[in-house]
Amino acid sequence: MPHCENFAPIILTGDRPTGPLHLGHYVGTLKNRVAMQRSHRQFVLIADAQGLTDNADNPDRIRRNVIEVCLDYLAVGVDPAYTTICLQSSLSALNELTLFYLNYVTVARLERNPTIKDEIRTRGFGRDIPAGFLCYPVAQAADITAFKATVVPVGDDQVPIIEQTNEIVRRINRQAAREVLPEAKAVVPKIGRLPGIDGERKMSKSQGNAIYLSASRDEIGTAVRRMYTDPGHLRVSDPGKIEGNIVFTYLDAFDPDVDAVADLKASYRHGGLGDIALKQRLEQVLETLIAPIRERRAELARRPDDVIDVLRQGTKTSRFVTQQTLSEVREALGLFILA
Amino acid sequence: MPHCENFAPIILTGDRPTGPLHLGHYVGTLKNRVAMQRSHRQFVLIADAQGLTDNADNPDRIRRNVIEVCLDYLAVGVDPAYTTICLQSSLSALNELTLFYLNYVTVARLERNPTIKDEIRTRGFGRDIPAGFLCYPVAQAADITAFKATVVPVGDDQVPIIEQTNEIVRRINRQAAREVLPEAKAVVPKIGRLPGIDGERKMSKSQGNAIYLSASRDEIGTAVRRMYTDPGHLRVSDPGKIEGNIVFTYLDAFDPDVDAVADLKASYRHGGLGDIALKQRLEQVLETLIAPIRERRAELARRPDDVIDVLRQGTKTSRFVTQQTLSEVREALGLFILA
Repeated sequence: MPHCENFAPIILTGDRPTGPLHLGHYVGTLKNRVAMQRSHRQFVLIADAQGLTDNADNPDRIRRNVIEVCLDYLAVGVDPAYTTICLQSSLSALNELTLFYLNYVTVARLERNPTIKDEIRTRGFGRDIPAGFLCYPVAQAADITAFKATVVPVGDDQVPIIEQTNEIVRRINRQAAREVLPEAKAVVPKIGRLPGIDGERKMSKSQGNAIYLSASRDEIGTAVRRMYTDPGHLRVSDPGKIEGNIVFTYLDAFDPDVDAVADLKASYRHGGLGDIALKQRLEQVLETLIAPIRERRAELARRPDDVIDVLRQGTKTSRFVTQQTLSEVREALGLFILA
Repeated sequence: MPHCENFAPIILTGDRPTGPLHLGHYVGTLKNRVAMQRSHRQFVLIADAQGLTDNADNPDRIRRNVIEVCLDYLAVGVDPAYTTICLQSSLSALNELTLFYLNYVTVARLERNPTIKDEIRTRGFGRDIPAGFLCYPVAQAADITAFKATVVPVGDDQVPIIEQTNEIVRRINRQAAREVLPEAKAVVPKIGRLPGIDGERKMSKSQGNAIYLSASRDEIGTAVRRMYTDPGHLRVSDPGKIEGNIVFTYLDAFDPDVDAVADLKASYRHGGLGDIALKQRLEQVLETLIAPIRERRAELARRPDDVIDVLRQGTKTSRFVTQQTLSEVREALGLFILA
């Protein structure tokens, strides 16, 4: 990673507040944020402005979920003493950087972005893609660079956005003839994406296949009972398959007793372990994980002003950081500064 | 003009600071600004951020010309006591509005914009058009609406941008179920565009066919001598043509003595009026117009801090106005407001 030697590692990560967070987020990112927050300077951005790029008709959904997402962060142990949680739409420097950067990126380049291509297909936008949606990788470049983030945890599908960011960084540094901004490194988690309870590749609210961090014991039980196992495993005594068996995928992801899971797998393969017993174990594992999160979340939800205070405080800190970067970029590009 | 009844007329106008202003600007807009400033609330925006959309490689050009353009305004009589002169890049609300609005406009709609189509052709951008340039009609919609402008003086080629603005206004008002923003009316000046001294349709720095508001007597003389008249008018006694005769076009635009110009036309048509005498008259007319502008401009240029103060003061006022509009739009759309 060239050009990063002079910068302490800074992490930028975040979520679009389109719904409360679920176990997929926990495995994919939240757990890492808690693990990393003492060894890195970490900013977590609640990306409400980005959420609007494909929810312009329903800003209400975005507004409501800002607090839900913030509650999820605090409940899993993201600690405002170490992690700066902030609200994207309250950081005006991000908008200005986005509009500068749009001058450095061609429309053709944006259209070639594989993330955008995929999402256009998934969301069925066709030629009527909102301009804000086409431009969102540039807005992400503004987010990343405004915090001078050098480490950006992303899903494998988001790697091209970090490449796009670094193209802009190099362009600006070249024009300024010095290192105004650091390049960022995409960090893709080793653990793959957690599938939905129906076995679909992605856990998501819209698919109705998610287990939320606020799930009650009953909701966990219902979800686990719905899980796909091995359709050929009809009797307890039959040998069963592990591959594609979502219950084992979840046990691998969440059961802390790795040896016990290995024994269960052997027994399931051999025959003699029933789905009901297996699911009871998973249900207990998930309840053990979620119960304290659910309780902290409920306790915090009774003090919404304290939660908003966390967000306000983090946003203030982030405003200093991002305005400082904006000033440096404006000066480096030689804009007219009206002191 | 529907939806405007509740708003006092507000004018928004401005220039991209890509070079000092010339007689084309004077005829097309500056003269009107001076005439309108006591009967309207008038904002004049020095559009440096927009200037960057196709000058990202050369921000220096934009920065240098901010003061040049401001000097031109003051020199022609735009009076900061009546007109608020402000700097676009110092008004962060404009960026935020632009990014909101981009969510309401499809890429296909931007590409259909005839102004954009024309300019892509003229500037030779092809598919490598900068994204910022494609989006600039939306940035103009942000400018216009941020000031709640209801009257926008534009060239006939810019009318589609006002239509685009009003589409966004209606979209937001519909979503908010009330009139958050007024629609704007494009006002196209009755006097056509002033051609360059070479007879080209447009006076422009890049064509080298402009007479600047800072032109010396010598520069005026040289420019007038270069002007295209009637190539068939070889001897003084020959009958000459008025149509396409740039000297008469300029006399029509600038000579206050309309009757005298009518007599000159008759005499030129009939034969007996030479190009030299005609050009001497025009030179004197232009010198009479430009001399006081040139002197005021030179005098102001010796006090750059005072000029910057005018810009700073106007920008502060504009910041209040535009932030207020931004707050109203954010509230109307139901964003999360972090007080």
